[in-house]
Amino acid sequence: MEKRDYIDTFTFSKAEMQYMVDLGLKIKDSIKHGYYPQLLKNKNLGMIFEQTSTRTRNSAEAAMAELGGHALYLAPGQIQLGKGGHESLDDTGHVLGRLLDILGARVNRHEEIEGLAKYSQVPVVNFMSDKSHPTQALGDLTTIEENLPKGKELEDIKLVFVGDATQVAMSTMFFCAQMGMKFAQFGPKSNQMPADVLAHAKKIAAANGGSIEISDDEKVLQGADFIYTDVWYGLYDKELQKDQYMKIFYPKYQVSDDLLKKTGNPDVKFMHCLPASRGEEVTASVLDGNHSIVWDQAENRKTAMRAIFVYLLNPNMKHASKALAERYQGELDEMLAKEPYQDNKELGIKY
Amino acid sequence: MEKRDYIDTFTFSKAEMQYMVDLGLKIKDSIKHGYYPQLLKNKNLGMIFEQTSTRTRNSAEAAMAELGGHALYLAPGQIQLGKGGHESLDDTGHVLGRLLDILGARVNRHEEIEGLAKYSQVPVVNFMSDKSHPTQALGDLTTIEENLPKGKELEDIKLVFVGDATQVAMSTMFFCAQMGMKFAQFGPKSNQMPADVLAHAKKIAAANGGSIEISDDEKVLQGADFIYTDVWYGLYDKELQKDQYMKIFYPKYQVSDDLLKKTGNPDVKFMHCLPASRGEEVTASVLDGNHSIVWDQAENRKTAMRAIFVYLLNPNMKHASKALAERYQGELDEMLAKEPYQDNKELGIKY
Amino acid sequence: MEKRDYIDTFTFSKAEMQYMVDLGLKIKDSIKHGYYPQLLKNKNLGMIFEQTSTRTRNSAEAAMAELGGHALYLAPGQIQLGKGGHESLDDTGHVLGRLLDILGARVNRHEEIEGLAKYSQVPVVNFMSDKSHPTQALGDLTTIEENLPKGKELEDIKLVFVGDATQVAMSTMFFCAQMGMKFAQFGPKSNQMPADVLAHAKKIAAANGGSIEISDDEKVLQGADFIYTDVWYGLYDKELQKDQYMKIFYPKYQVSDDLLKKTGNPDVKFMHCLPASRGEEVTASVLDGNHSIVWDQAENRKTAMRAIFVYLLNPNMKHASKALAERYQGELDEMLAKEPYQDNKELGIKY
Repeated sequence: MEKRDYIDTFTFSKAEMQYMVDLGLKIKDSIKHGYYPQLLKNKNLGMIFEQTSTRTRNSAEAAMAELGGHALYLAPGQIQLGKGGHESLDDTGHVLGRLLDILGARVNRHEEIEGLAKYSQVPVVNFMSDKSHPTQALGDLTTIEENLPKGKELEDIKLVFVGDATQVAMSTMFFCAQMGMKFAQFGPKSNQMPADVLAHAKKIAAANGGSIEISDDEKVLQGADFIYTDVWYGLYDKELQKDQYMKIFYPKYQVSDDLLKKTGNPDVKFMHCLPASRGEEVTASVLDGNHSIVWDQAENRKTAMRAIFVYLLNPNMKHASKALAERYQGELDEMLAKEPYQDNKELGIKY
Repeated sequence: MEKRDYIDTFTFSKAEMQYMVDLGLKIKDSIKHGYYPQLLKNKNLGMIFEQTSTRTRNSAEAAMAELGGHALYLAPGQIQLGKGGHESLDDTGHVLGRLLDILGARVNRHEEIEGLAKYSQVPVVNFMSDKSHPTQALGDLTTIEENLPKGKELEDIKLVFVGDATQVAMSTMFFCAQMGMKFAQFGPKSNQMPADVLAHAKKIAAANGGSIEISDDEKVLQGADFIYTDVWYGLYDKELQKDQYMKIFYPKYQVSDDLLKKTGNPDVKFMHCLPASRGEEVTASVLDGNHSIVWDQAENRKTAMRAIFVYLLNPNMKHASKALAERYQGELDEMLAKEPYQDNKELGIKY
Repeated sequence: MEKRDYIDTFTFSKAEMQYMVDLGLKIKDSIKHGYYPQLLKNKNLGMIFEQTSTRTRNSAEAAMAELGGHALYLAPGQIQLGKGGHESLDDTGHVLGRLLDILGARVNRHEEIEGLAKYSQVPVVNFMSDKSHPTQALGDLTTIEENLPKGKELEDIKLVFVGDATQVAMSTMFFCAQMGMKFAQFGPKSNQMPADVLAHAKKIAAANGGSIEISDDEKVLQGADFIYTDVWYGLYDKELQKDQYMKIFYPKYQVSDDLLKKTGNPDVKFMHCLPASRGEEVTASVLDGNHSIVWDQAENRKTAMRAIFVYLLNPNMKHASKALAERYQGELDEMLAKEPYQDNKELGIKY
């Protein structure tokens, strides 16, 4: 069967993205009512991390365990990779593809995750590179779905990303473009979206009825349903010292109560991928206040991981044989019907 | 439902401590006969370790796996915690509480474990701090129950802790006080229990019919049922060099065959939380001799972990809804009735 | 019941080796058809690694998870072992034997794995020492079985190990000797098998109808069915700089298309334990060419791990009680009969 990799969201169709969001929400609801569908039973996920991680690693490992699988945490220096380890990422990918069922990797350079996918015969999930953070993207799209303003469709939503054009900003722009949403970046000219990335996203937005606006004028905040920000200290080898980045972004791009007011939307929601630096890109009053949905975002990292793993590994997808699809559809149907945990619901039990 | 944290034993009642000991012994017996009750099915434990650990980590992780759950090992430098990691323990606790079902942490300062419990919405277990080691305490209480001298009740037992007032010594004092036992420390004035800790423990002992004695006179050894000791090299930043601590404790406080004789009890048992330094706080002849129950203690670290996790996570406790309690009581009853492994028992099979 | 350790292959009989190969192949076939026999259900494997590992760690951990068990990865510095960790390998082995069901360890010195086995009451598996790599050996024997030339039995096979007398070379020599195969080392006099090891292996070969030849003459390559090589940079503290080892081995002992031709066997297979250094002990054209079966070898590391763990842990072995053996034989029979996945086979489904 043909394998799929989840390296950028934009290689998945709008329908597929919507399918994964729905799948994630169904599994989340199922587990909230005490039924853990064993859709990843006996499957092994290898997690290669070239950098530390809290949300990505914990959400991936917990998602595997809850659905009957297992995750192997391969920390820096714990496998024979790269310098002193005597083995290339290519060979490592080839070998791990023979031993495990699916791989995830957080890498320094986007080319590395692409190489891993090329040499491994099993699906590869991008756990963040310098160019994109697609598991974050699916979790955020899920959180937006859960927080849609009354009477609005996804296509009516305006999301403004404030500050630096980080890989999270880029991934956010892409999923907004794919889903036909209105995306804007409010950031200084020195830190706006790179021209090639922007051009790519605009093409996708045009095809799906979305729009993209990049500006350093605060007027772009008006009408926002969601304000999103990320840290200012930059990426990896391009990390800046505090006095350097404060000079670029502060105070104009700090998300404060005052900035939220400029949206003109009293119900605007605040998003952040975390970790956050209170007093820098966001004030404590906003991060810990009642506009904030950042902890829901963190929780939905797991919602997204479950959906991605099930989508890539379960054979009830287009690329699987029909016979197997029918076989598995039973368990999915059972889950979707929510029969298994109806008892719990009737008892009024929430886990 | 209201969550409970297991940070110090003294926030649990005598009845609760006894319940956890009994629960642990029942699960231990069940597994010895080949039946693994899946009381932690699909549950995820996050284990944060700021220091290395052999017994605590292995017993916790194995306990989760045996009972159907999973443990995530979060080593120093592997999550985005603290210095260079860009995230506070508070935010980390908040996020992990959204992703996992229960947390355990070995921390340098007791305040850290209290902060983690405050910001996390799930139960938090103290995997050792500078002030207490409560999972060790429950395991030790279990080992004492298994080794009660003929005809004696817990309330008749005298335990003498020899040497330094480590956090293990403090935790031992507290569980003895809670259970109405006779506790004594035999140690040099410079390393006896701090006044505030001692006062707290004496109040608890008084309420439960126990007694506490602190002395540098070897007469305090007389009548001991259990002699307990710990290493002399001190805690964390207060660690001493060998020549320093030998001057304080050696030879008077070394547990030797000679010291054991001073109890006047030929059946006295020797306890140690391990790791041990033969030739320092204990002689090889005692540690590896027939008074020693230190390997049983090590094994009961797992007995205790199972009980603590089941007690905190399973909803058949006071703080759970009545409906759910009834639901779960079935599986517990089944386990208690020991039906599932009766066959094995009849075959005379021991695992 | 008496425990067995898997430290060297030569303490296992030829029949036992064959049994483990067959068992591994049956489980592999079973899983390929979607049925995961839960033969390690609820069992915990502790994995101590004094060095990094890709294949060994991932194959062991995945094998445990697939068959219902769990593996604990105990990295250097993560348990209280050795220098600064305050605990000896002996005591650590003793304690882990009380908490876990089976141990595996990659150690710097062979004596360490023997000590661990002596002090631990549970089975110990050698995950590679300076003297042997027996889990690699069983996997390689399995790969040879899968790649037997038409009409040949194992006893007809000639395997030539090219280059350095590494621990993998020694382990290969021993399993060939045990199975009555023809083994040869083609290497420079300075790096040929040590006399005592060679004498030991020759005795085993004689008892089983095999033969051993050591030579620096390329004539020894003639008639080889399998060519095997390993890296040249040496072991641990004896590691050589590139210019040093190239002077010893290059170009005479590099496995190239030209060297393969010298076997006179157009169907000769190329083996390597990996990681490999293309351009040193092997050319890229051989490693990535169609004589190479190195990725099958990597996959069979897991095949071997499954068989070893099941053989050591399951009580349907000679050293188990008869009652328990009968009990377990049922599940094994069910697996061997392949009933559980016959449906999948009929549907033509391959996982």
